[in-house]
Amino acid sequence: MAILSSSVKSYIAGFLDGDGCIMYQLIHRKDYRNGYQIRASIVFYQHTDKREFLEWLHQLFGVGYVRNRGDNVSEYTIVGLEPVIKILKVLKPYVRLKREHIKLALEINKILSKSYAIQRFIKAAELVDKFAILNYSKKRTNTSEKFKSYLRQHKLYPRND
Amino acid sequence: MAILSSSVKSYIAGFLDGDGCIMYQLIHRKDYRNGYQIRASIVFYQHTDKREFLEWLHQLFGVGYVRNRGDNVSEYTIVGLEPVIKILKVLKPYVRLKREHIKLALEINKILSKSYAIQRFIKAAELVDKFAILNYSKKRTNTSEKFKSYLRQHKLYPRND
Repeated sequence: MAILSSSVKSYIAGFLDGDGCIMYQLIHRKDYRNGYQIRASIVFYQHTDKREFLEWLHQLFGVGYVRNRGDNVSEYTIVGLEPVIKILKVLKPYVRLKREHIKLALEINKILSKSYAIQRFIKAAELVDKFAILNYSKKRTNTSEKFKSYLRQHKLYPRND
Repeated sequence: MAILSSSVKSYIAGFLDGDGCIMYQLIHRKDYRNGYQIRASIVFYQHTDKREFLEWLHQLFGVGYVRNRGDNVSEYTIVGLEPVIKILKVLKPYVRLKREHIKLALEINKILSKSYAIQRFIKAAELVDKFAILNYSKKRTNTSEKFKSYLRQHKLYPRND
């Protein structure tokens, strides 16, 4: 990541608060040990006419990818627990509206930073549920409840001992 | 207007670029000398849950009003050529995506600052048309052409002498 001035960090925080998105989601992955993955992402949107603005952000952060969605909107997406948390830490002091998102992301990060042991993963998954609320999300396909059913069904759910 | 730090100005510029709106429109007003008014406005949007954020902006700028739109979205709107241009001048060095908007607003301001004489007003109205393009506006009820027809119809159109 480039070294960002506080003015640029403030600007990006404002832009993220205005039209950006911080998401943590549970994604079903058959090939994963727990059957589910926690997917972290940050997305910035812009009219495709102004795609170069997204390229500028991309250059600053040095991760993720820019794509044209096809409806005159382009997206700059950063995916992954590590790059997402790194960016959120940089923007944290400047963000005003998405403070709760960042707090929650840091909690999830803390839980998973030590290990992906199933107990920890379940706890993190429960926090992921809260993102849907913060993002006023209407469609939620995967919840921690669904994840837990999956674990029980596959005899992966940890015993309480 | 409160004295704003460069960090706050950057933040607001980012927020405006992300989800804000700068609009100049021609509004038909029977009681106006030229039959039309040029209406300048800046609008900031936010989920009504976060209305206090808009109140914070309102306090900083000391003009305009915050209202709940009724669909869980609240708006902070500043209307008027003078307050709008004042705010745009403050944010100008920090804005990245809406630079064209501000340039155009300043041109309109310059044209109207000396007088509202009909020749000047027509020139300003022609620049107002460009805002619809910058804002990707699909519905445009009043254009400078319509305004000019109105002037001709009411024998208000200036002679070329």
